[in-house]
Amino acid sequence: MKELPLAKVYQLIEPGPVVLLTTARNGQPNVMTMSWHMMVEFEPPLVACVVSENDYSFAALRATKECVIAIPAAHLAQNIVDVGNCSGRDVPKFERFGLSAIPATRVVAPLIAECFANLECRVIDSRLVNRYNLFVLEVLKAWVDPAQESPKTIHHHGYGKFVIDGKIIKLKSKMR
Amino acid sequence: MKELPLAKVYQLIEPGPVVLLTTARNGQPNVMTMSWHMMVEFEPPLVACVVSENDYSFAALRATKECVIAIPAAHLAQNIVDVGNCSGRDVPKFERFGLSAIPATRVVAPLIAECFANLECRVIDSRLVNRYNLFVLEVLKAWVDPAQESPKTIHHHGYGKFVIDGKIIKLKSKMR
Repeated sequence: MKELPLAKVYQLIEPGPVVLLTTARNGQPNVMTMSWHMMVEFEPPLVACVVSENDYSFAALRATKECVIAIPAAHLAQNIVDVGNCSGRDVPKFERFGLSAIPATRVVAPLIAECFANLECRVIDSRLVNRYNLFVLEVLKAWVDPAQESPKTIHHHGYGKFVIDGKIIKLKSKMR
Repeated sequence: MKELPLAKVYQLIEPGPVVLLTTARNGQPNVMTMSWHMMVEFEPPLVACVVSENDYSFAALRATKECVIAIPAAHLAQNIVDVGNCSGRDVPKFERFGLSAIPATRVVAPLIAECFANLECRVIDSRLVNRYNLFVLEVLKAWVDPAQESPKTIHHHGYGKFVIDGKIIKLKSKMR
């Protein structure tokens, strides 16, 4: 894993890929599938996300105030669905689905070795958690896997329908 | 335009497409390009978005508490960039870029006829506006254009680089 400048983090999150969210509590790592997230600020990179209070990860995220957002490429689509279809209450998901937890540097939640990007995050604002389960995170450290070049991501359209990234276009733009 | 059941709105926003945001203030409609948005709740559909206080739309959104999220298909990519590269302070964007404003039913902000989906929205929570420019919206009414079948959207990766939707896959999933 190679460090990614924090100023580039938005380029990974803004396109709206399905991501995995890892947490760790009492020595137990867990991972869930997430699609409700967005950028909030370029630098330091802030990300908002919604984690349902029905998700086992919710309590860990609220208590530890730490997580990792791991971005899987399209070849991991079946893992993404498998992770999303069960709960860490019942299943040790890393072992079950062959995902490799590796230590992060700034948070206790693990990175996922198979993902092409990993963002170490800390909860910085919980004001909208009670009402909407909405957390504001600061990305403290970002990693990319140089071995995964131009990875394609997947986007969820509901009920197991996903769209894979297609053609890239470049248009002259002043937008960052 | 045909009405879309509100329970299906998340299927349009969750994949993370670049969208257009319209507002109207003192009889003047405006439109901006936006990629920082996410779902917050299925039904009634709640959407969070970040609109920079540097954007001309920010003041209109904060004052009127109304907007429309219009979702353009990939063939409008040049319009999307053009809208994003200038300000409503200087340019009447609908006329300049050949976009057709049509009346909404629940808000004063207009729909965009060329977009395949339009979501009429009201600001329901402004607690994170001062700190992060983050608005929570409720979608009051949703419209789709039946003439645009299976539209492909675009996703922004920064500096005019966009990825167009590619192949669709379906996996067996219990996730909504």
